[in-house]
Amino acid sequence: MEETGPARQKHRIVIVGGGFGGLFAARKLGGRDFDVTLVDKRNFHTFQPLLYQVAVGMLTTGDVCTPLRVALRHRKNVRTLMSTVYDIDPDRRLLYHESGELGYDTLIVATGVKHAYFGHDEWAGDAPGLKTVEHALAMRRRIFLAFETAEMTIDPAERTALLTFVIVGAGPTGVELAGAIAELAHRTMVEDFRRIDPREARIVLLEGAEQVLPVYPAKLARKAENMLSELGVEIVTDTMASAIDAQGVTAKGPDGERRIEARTVLWAAGVRASRFGEILAERTDAARERGGRLKVGGDLSLPSHPDIFVIGDLAAVTDRKGQTVPGLAPAAIQQGEYLAKQLKQRAAGKTGRDFAYKDQGSMAVIGRNRAVGQLPWMSVAGFSAWLLWVVVHIYALIGSERRLRVMLQWVWKYFTRRTGDRLITGQPPNTRRIHEQHQPAGQANSGDG
Amino acid sequence: MEETGPARQKHRIVIVGGGFGGLFAARKLGGRDFDVTLVDKRNFHTFQPLLYQVAVGMLTTGDVCTPLRVALRHRKNVRTLMSTVYDIDPDRRLLYHESGELGYDTLIVATGVKHAYFGHDEWAGDAPGLKTVEHALAMRRRIFLAFETAEMTIDPAERTALLTFVIVGAGPTGVELAGAIAELAHRTMVEDFRRIDPREARIVLLEGAEQVLPVYPAKLARKAENMLSELGVEIVTDTMASAIDAQGVTAKGPDGERRIEARTVLWAAGVRASRFGEILAERTDAARERGGRLKVGGDLSLPSHPDIFVIGDLAAVTDRKGQTVPGLAPAAIQQGEYLAKQLKQRAAGKTGRDFAYKDQGSMAVIGRNRAVGQLPWMSVAGFSAWLLWVVVHIYALIGSERRLRVMLQWVWKYFTRRTGDRLITGQPPNTRRIHEQHQPAGQANSGDG
Repeated sequence: MEETGPARQKHRIVIVGGGFGGLFAARKLGGRDFDVTLVDKRNFHTFQPLLYQVAVGMLTTGDVCTPLRVALRHRKNVRTLMSTVYDIDPDRRLLYHESGELGYDTLIVATGVKHAYFGHDEWAGDAPGLKTVEHALAMRRRIFLAFETAEMTIDPAERTALLTFVIVGAGPTGVELAGAIAELAHRTMVEDFRRIDPREARIVLLEGAEQVLPVYPAKLARKAENMLSELGVEIVTDTMASAIDAQGVTAKGPDGERRIEARTVLWAAGVRASRFGEILAERTDAARERGGRLKVGGDLSLPSHPDIFVIGDLAAVTDRKGQTVPGLAPAAIQQGEYLAKQLKQRAAGKTGRDFAYKDQGSMAVIGRNRAVGQLPWMSVAGFSAWLLWVVVHIYALIGSERRLRVMLQWVWKYFTRRTGDRLITGQPPNTRRIHEQHQPAGQANSGDG
Repeated sequence: MEETGPARQKHRIVIVGGGFGGLFAARKLGGRDFDVTLVDKRNFHTFQPLLYQVAVGMLTTGDVCTPLRVALRHRKNVRTLMSTVYDIDPDRRLLYHESGELGYDTLIVATGVKHAYFGHDEWAGDAPGLKTVEHALAMRRRIFLAFETAEMTIDPAERTALLTFVIVGAGPTGVELAGAIAELAHRTMVEDFRRIDPREARIVLLEGAEQVLPVYPAKLARKAENMLSELGVEIVTDTMASAIDAQGVTAKGPDGERRIEARTVLWAAGVRASRFGEILAERTDAARERGGRLKVGGDLSLPSHPDIFVIGDLAAVTDRKGQTVPGLAPAAIQQGEYLAKQLKQRAAGKTGRDFAYKDQGSMAVIGRNRAVGQLPWMSVAGFSAWLLWVVVHIYALIGSERRLRVMLQWVWKYFTRRTGDRLITGQPPNTRRIHEQHQPAGQANSGDG
């Protein structure tokens, strides 16, 4: 696709990726003398911090996703393209995407990270991660299908394996998933089955480090571990997954290997640069850091290519205060807004200062009404931390209708313990067979949900 | 799976299908001396009258689906099985489902209807219908992907075809879809694109009969046609689709055939008996009526098999007042509740009267704030009809949280014209190719949304 129209003369800024970094950069670049194009392979922004609530059926997709066009509706100089960018020619300043080419004067890459299996990509099929809404829905289907199948299973060993959930990795996502599944099984669903008792479900949280939430201070991590234990989560630290298959996990700890038979294994461990991040690094010979993140300068540009900026989880940044910037939503938002400001100043002939990260802390919610938080000035734990978490996340949700809906559901669930959207959508693998035998072509479901 | 446990002695009632008929029968059979099993291939009930709002992104899946276990949580004698029933042996009183066999003393079949293509099953791939939530999400993806692709398309003819939407069939579903898509394109999304003007979108409603809403009185249908025209819907009556392919529709009317180039064709015309309904008819030699519905007696049982009852859309019933019972949700609910009452009376040695349908009328909503309704005692049209429709549907939604959420969203959208959940989830076919080239195995999305 060639670029035409009057916008041609303006300075062309292309943003790849509509996550926190890309979306907030686009918003701040709105209404200026720039011709801005945001390209994303999806037509919506995902509020990743709440994805785990979709995976356990507490929230529904519409609550955590915002159409990019709606978020950018009033930025008339910002065009949104739903397309997958798969290559770049930095010398010709051209992007190649599935629907054609896209020229730029300034490029902002914010394609983030995806989960990584420490060189064991073969585990991906048996241990889904949680980076996209499709992943969250795949997890949701697995979790609830396991309970449905257990209800129909006579063989006790098989039933036990169906009711065993292993979460690999005890960072915030792993902790939140484990807590939410434990709450679901041990509290929310206790009345819902006739043959199985969901309270018998085992939720095992595997962590390679000495404690859950490895980046948190030991005291706070200990509190998180106590909250998880109260919900019935088995915490196994100092232990790594050495093998994962459809039947379960082999875990390697100080006292050797142990096998856990589990039909549901969820991955919350490593991440690595997105595929386009890897391609960008190849094409620009950019330096890589842990997880393949691209090393950028203090102004967030690639040292070798001052017209290419990398922000968000994909960027390895040391800010002007010497801090290593963490891979968190607030950091991505700050980078996106900083960069927009920079580009405006440059257009005005000024040069700005390097990026400085304002640490707003990080939190992990555990169950229905407890959380732990590592704030810049203090640590918080328990109900007060949970309240703070709720306020922060409600406030951050894009779109006031979404805020209302999510708040309404949280309040509702807080008082009723009900879980609404536990839908197993799409054809579960085990029904597809029979289904296709018995349905004419085209009647088979789209697998969408 | 063999049936075991103390429940064995009780009278075993198996209900196949968790739609309105099956769910309401199960609810009324709760707490009694029956051993009730509800089998459905999904783990949730779908509120079909609002599916079209999911298809156009006004509501999200969680708003129109209720987990069957939650709906039946307090009916301790009712067990829910998520499994696909694919055959029956009426002599041995056995059902065959994907996870085993299921014996019954009394069988209630409520598997409904699916859309039918008048012997053109090959159209199914190019013209999805709207019977399941997966269908609604497939429609949603098609509708919004058409606008996204048009925004990237230079070729004017292709763009026009992408912005042409043909709805085949002008019953309530077709009318509601056409009105909602017209409102979406001509009102809700006007500010959201930069290259295309969504107001240029053509929405064509094809109907074989002389008027839209053929079962409605001409005067009311005329009002509906006026409302649709005001929203910019092209109404083509007395015309049938004679060919459908990926490029568009060939329509046959009084003045010959015409071709409409349209990348999005939606099917809202014929229905026919569900697959299990067909199998049941074969195994029991039951008489079939239009659409393959099974002819049942005044007590809703199969004349040849008094222990098998058929209710809901799948049943062809003439009630004791001589009325032909229509395929509507209220009729299915009435039949389910009537049957539960009957079975209780029989257990008590009494014999009840035949089923009598209480006509509550039917409505079709057109756009944001108008509807037409054919009520038993009068016809209604316009804003008052829409208000009535809202009240009736909010009231009927299962689960008070769902009522709150849907009401909140309707009120919000009424005042803001915003459409929230227009997510194109799963990998759109055109990106999958590139995606698979560039993503390691297992990273590809589940296609769930």
